[in-house]
Amino acid sequence: MSAKDHLQAFFYPDTVAVIGASSTPGKVGHTVVSNMLQAGYKGKLYPVNPNAKVIEGVSVFNDIESLPRGVDLGVVAVPRGSVIPSLKRLVSVGTKSVIVITAGFKEAGKDGYALEREIVEVCEESGMALLGPNCLGMINASAGVNASFASGNPIPGSIAFFSQSGALCVAILDWALGENIGFSKFVSLGNKAVLDEADMLEYLNEDEETKVILGYVENVERGEEFLRQARRASLNKPVIMIKSGTTAAGAKAASSHTGAIAGSDQTYSAAFRQAGVIRVDDVATLFNLAQAFSTQPLPKGPNLAVVTNSGGPGILTADTADRSALSMAALSQKTVQRLQEFLPSYAAFYNPVDIIGDADAERYRRTLGVVSEDSMVHSILVLLTPTATVEIEETAKAVIHTARKSGKPVFACFMGKTRIRKARAMLMDAGIPCYAFPEAAVKAIEAMYEFYLWKNRPEPVYKEIERDRARAMQVIQTHEQRNVAEIVEFEAQEIVKAYGLPTPRTVLVRSSEEALVAAEEIGYPVVLKIASPDISHKSDVDGVKVNVRNANEVMRTFHEITSRAQRMRQDAYIAGCLVQEMAPPGVKEVIIGFKRDEQFGPMVMFGLGGIHVEIMKDISFRLAPLSRQDAFEIVREIKSYMLLKGIKGEQPVNFTALEDILLTMSQMALDLPQVWEAEFNPVLVNHERAMVADVRMTLQLKR
Amino acid sequence: MSAKDHLQAFFYPDTVAVIGASSTPGKVGHTVVSNMLQAGYKGKLYPVNPNAKVIEGVSVFNDIESLPRGVDLGVVAVPRGSVIPSLKRLVSVGTKSVIVITAGFKEAGKDGYALEREIVEVCEESGMALLGPNCLGMINASAGVNASFASGNPIPGSIAFFSQSGALCVAILDWALGENIGFSKFVSLGNKAVLDEADMLEYLNEDEETKVILGYVENVERGEEFLRQARRASLNKPVIMIKSGTTAAGAKAASSHTGAIAGSDQTYSAAFRQAGVIRVDDVATLFNLAQAFSTQPLPKGPNLAVVTNSGGPGILTADTADRSALSMAALSQKTVQRLQEFLPSYAAFYNPVDIIGDADAERYRRTLGVVSEDSMVHSILVLLTPTATVEIEETAKAVIHTARKSGKPVFACFMGKTRIRKARAMLMDAGIPCYAFPEAAVKAIEAMYEFYLWKNRPEPVYKEIERDRARAMQVIQTHEQRNVAEIVEFEAQEIVKAYGLPTPRTVLVRSSEEALVAAEEIGYPVVLKIASPDISHKSDVDGVKVNVRNANEVMRTFHEITSRAQRMRQDAYIAGCLVQEMAPPGVKEVIIGFKRDEQFGPMVMFGLGGIHVEIMKDISFRLAPLSRQDAFEIVREIKSYMLLKGIKGEQPVNFTALEDILLTMSQMALDLPQVWEAEFNPVLVNHERAMVADVRMTLQLKR
Repeated sequence: MSAKDHLQAFFYPDTVAVIGASSTPGKVGHTVVSNMLQAGYKGKLYPVNPNAKVIEGVSVFNDIESLPRGVDLGVVAVPRGSVIPSLKRLVSVGTKSVIVITAGFKEAGKDGYALEREIVEVCEESGMALLGPNCLGMINASAGVNASFASGNPIPGSIAFFSQSGALCVAILDWALGENIGFSKFVSLGNKAVLDEADMLEYLNEDEETKVILGYVENVERGEEFLRQARRASLNKPVIMIKSGTTAAGAKAASSHTGAIAGSDQTYSAAFRQAGVIRVDDVATLFNLAQAFSTQPLPKGPNLAVVTNSGGPGILTADTADRSALSMAALSQKTVQRLQEFLPSYAAFYNPVDIIGDADAERYRRTLGVVSEDSMVHSILVLLTPTATVEIEETAKAVIHTARKSGKPVFACFMGKTRIRKARAMLMDAGIPCYAFPEAAVKAIEAMYEFYLWKNRPEPVYKEIERDRARAMQVIQTHEQRNVAEIVEFEAQEIVKAYGLPTPRTVLVRSSEEALVAAEEIGYPVVLKIASPDISHKSDVDGVKVNVRNANEVMRTFHEITSRAQRMRQDAYIAGCLVQEMAPPGVKEVIIGFKRDEQFGPMVMFGLGGIHVEIMKDISFRLAPLSRQDAFEIVREIKSYMLLKGIKGEQPVNFTALEDILLTMSQMALDLPQVWEAEFNPVLVNHERAMVADVRMTLQLKR
Repeated sequence: MSAKDHLQAFFYPDTVAVIGASSTPGKVGHTVVSNMLQAGYKGKLYPVNPNAKVIEGVSVFNDIESLPRGVDLGVVAVPRGSVIPSLKRLVSVGTKSVIVITAGFKEAGKDGYALEREIVEVCEESGMALLGPNCLGMINASAGVNASFASGNPIPGSIAFFSQSGALCVAILDWALGENIGFSKFVSLGNKAVLDEADMLEYLNEDEETKVILGYVENVERGEEFLRQARRASLNKPVIMIKSGTTAAGAKAASSHTGAIAGSDQTYSAAFRQAGVIRVDDVATLFNLAQAFSTQPLPKGPNLAVVTNSGGPGILTADTADRSALSMAALSQKTVQRLQEFLPSYAAFYNPVDIIGDADAERYRRTLGVVSEDSMVHSILVLLTPTATVEIEETAKAVIHTARKSGKPVFACFMGKTRIRKARAMLMDAGIPCYAFPEAAVKAIEAMYEFYLWKNRPEPVYKEIERDRARAMQVIQTHEQRNVAEIVEFEAQEIVKAYGLPTPRTVLVRSSEEALVAAEEIGYPVVLKIASPDISHKSDVDGVKVNVRNANEVMRTFHEITSRAQRMRQDAYIAGCLVQEMAPPGVKEVIIGFKRDEQFGPMVMFGLGGIHVEIMKDISFRLAPLSRQDAFEIVREIKSYMLLKGIKGEQPVNFTALEDILLTMSQMALDLPQVWEAEFNPVLVNHERAMVADVRMTLQLKR
């Protein structure tokens, strides 16, 4: 049995032991016991304390050894020095899972780090599941479990929340109590010595009480497992996360907290997107989305209809929708005609449908009925301004009625605070998210539509790459044996050939006479490049000459290039020159590369050569393996995509040829783990074909 | 006297008449009277109604004619058909200002539009000030005036709010009551027949009760006056506005509302920025900023210090700060030492200062004392997570103490809702903005810092441009007489010369022999261009040849260009060719132009040639007149600025030369109102100089 197999016992324990239980109010060991009681725990609760007899009316065990065998969950709130002995004793009596609340481990320097390694060892040997250390605990409200030292008991609900920051748990719990938001599972992960985000995602994906999964992470350590679990879960239910420590300042703050090393933000963005995780920047948005997702069906398209009793807020909404992935629905002629039958002539019949400040609930009800029946409308937002004449609660009923009848997602924005308070509560109780201003509503609908697209995207297709991996490995091993990290041109070409990548015709020549023969065969003009295993940046020795146009120039250039290189790098072995086919006119230069990320593995990048990658930082990313769709998207995401598509009557480049090279690069990244970075630069592409003109690879040598 | 002169009587009326007052609760004419009474109005209130005797205990006048002369404010709530007669009668008894609540004017089509013109005429003749029509009214809480049919009386405060949307007024009023936010002036502008945003800005700038001015606009009609007033006001107090109808969908919605034509978003952005108006996208941010500005001093620099009792929220804050214009302050060594004296060893002594979950109020107090004394700290954000041990209200007191003592801006983010409710109220009452999550706090501090920079920016410097305006006007008038809208090369050159702009040496030649002479004099290589008043796009006839290298090529090219042009455009007058100095190597091409905006006047634009302007839309804008600082900024705002600064060891271009051309373009836009659009394309620039190589201008011809 491993930790994961005990998660059912962990979340739904029949027996809970509290190690370090205390009769002194205010002490963590007391709060846990009283939280369990206040949560209405129906199972068996065993406070453990060497001296006490009864705590909060519950009989106390004086030591762990006296506990019955096979306790489902132990909560450890003892001083740091006693944690490891307690855990060992819990293992000895067959405890299935534990929460270690105690702090002072990985986050507290070297000694703590060593102690935390011991915790991991105890769990790995025994298979006991462990949450923490340095955490707030876990709450499962529907099962009457509050194994935490939090203040206040959340109500049961369908939102699961896990957080690396215990403080955020405390704040959110307090806030959720005020907002009447309920939770299915509420987990403070702490230092994640054993159980981590990936475990949570795996469990919560199967958890029937959870409709939406929320998470706050500062770093992810088991990157690939996290991605696998996130991808599985997000096909089933929305996974919404805050990843903090994303900026330099944040990462600096993070590294002095929970000992986390935050990865690069680009990598996390790529990873989250590819796993279908909805990433948000702030806590307010996290819960806005959670409420929308947990109550309303997904919109089946981008078209939003807005019904309002006032113009200004309607315009604000249309503005916000236009800046989002949504569109303002164009209502059908039939819908407009039906509206004209009963709305006053001064109403606005087009979206936003403005039914004017004197609208009563009946006018709202009829309008919503008609609008929701328009097949071009995928989602509906009802705006209400609390004018003097409006029937606020009755209108709320009309909205609820429409939502139930139409089956389409319906959202409300009842503007204001005091006069709409009651209606807002009615709407929220009926599962209709109600916002104070339109912007948050549009943001939530947009996220739901994007999630709909994600869930319904075509199954990813992976291309089978024909290759001679052994031939590539041969080159790598030779370099490793020679302890040379850089693989450059004519040896890198071997790898390129092993992967069947298209390249310009290239001949290695050792003399000017050989150069001439090669050039005549390839056809003028040609390119000459210095060929030396010791020179990785050819431009440093002025080692490339393009547009070499005749025999005379070939001979002269060969001598120039080789002698200059030898002069500038006296210790370099000069193999000769490469004579290469010249790129046809109209060709564009792109860069395709990959780089390994510590957490998530190889990340493939794409961008245009020239100023675009280096100066404008116009680059797109995907983690390997790339699917055909990933390759399709990555070349179209860059801002300079228009240049590849062709401007001023140019033909578009051969995108399929580019995508094939990207897929091959992705395969190389998976096949050749010794390669730390690789770059095809430039890849030459025109409307007919794409060729890899130059290659560099860097190995990670063992020390 | 004009409308503006009556604004004092309007906002602080000693006498208020309500025309169309009613004894029937629910009617607008009743609500206005009862709102005035509930607001505690101390002046004289005159309900006017032909039939009633007493309304809400106040004696009624049966007609306008019986009113005492010189009433300060009349509120008109009569049917549409009676509005004009009522206004005329009010003028006849010397009424100083009126509010027309009645709707059905400009916003309601052609008839209403004509009626609204009549309203304007009545006011223009009499000088009576008028708010509306089609508005909610006006509230001045401190003066006991609620001349509106809004529900609820706002409390007095230091925030002024005006809005083109009455609905937004209703919603915000209700929301502000719930949030305990007070207003100095609250104005629903409606159709803005007479009083508009510019008048409000002018008045509120002088209004001592107003510390912050908020506005919601859909369109601005008196653009230049608006800018003048906004610029004046924003040097004195923050002006924060939502401009809606900014996107295509929003503008479509806006044009069916209040009859507004929304201008281009780019222009509004440029206008707002140049006038120092802080533009926000949503209502929540509008009030977040308003609260911060109305209570705290401006930060005198970017450095933010964060004191927190928990790590996660600290990281979130550092992340958000890093994405903003703020920086996380680097605390001085002395500060860190002082903190180490009393903070526990496991605290984080660097910013964010994490004083750990067991911090009591005293630890907060001492830490805040030390941090606020660090001269490198410009603003302080105090984060509190409601852990079990934290002393929430006592900590609030410590924050208040620090804020009073330090003189630096202090903000709080007490996370959660229920347990921090009391402390939040204490903080807000003491004028310390308190947010539920860190993001909103950082956004507010950032806006305040940017406003500090705006207020303290150097006085704009305008360059005196030496020019021969008459010579330029001559060219324009000739074109107008000939009814030719396009001014192109050799005539446009006249204007360029009149403005003393640097140009490449250019000679107009009529024969290949003349071309040869010119080329020999200029020096090879040269450029040849077709010269014809009828050909504005030279490339259409392949009419430009660069890099013409010798006598032979000059002669041949002259014949080629002129004969091809004549063949392709048989009706065109071909004057010959221009022989032009060739741009030196390393030169860059930029585009400088202007275009007139209906509302705000000429807008100057700047961008790089090639793909940058046309494909990448990488352009920056400023309204004329440009100051030296504007010119400095506009060339540095484009994304491709790096290319001008020089990459890979290139020298930077001569920015001053570019800026001078921009300032001249700005002057031309002001001098030559007949020119609708102008473009210098390309302007050639290298590290030594900049030259205007080609010019096109388009006149707006009278029809």
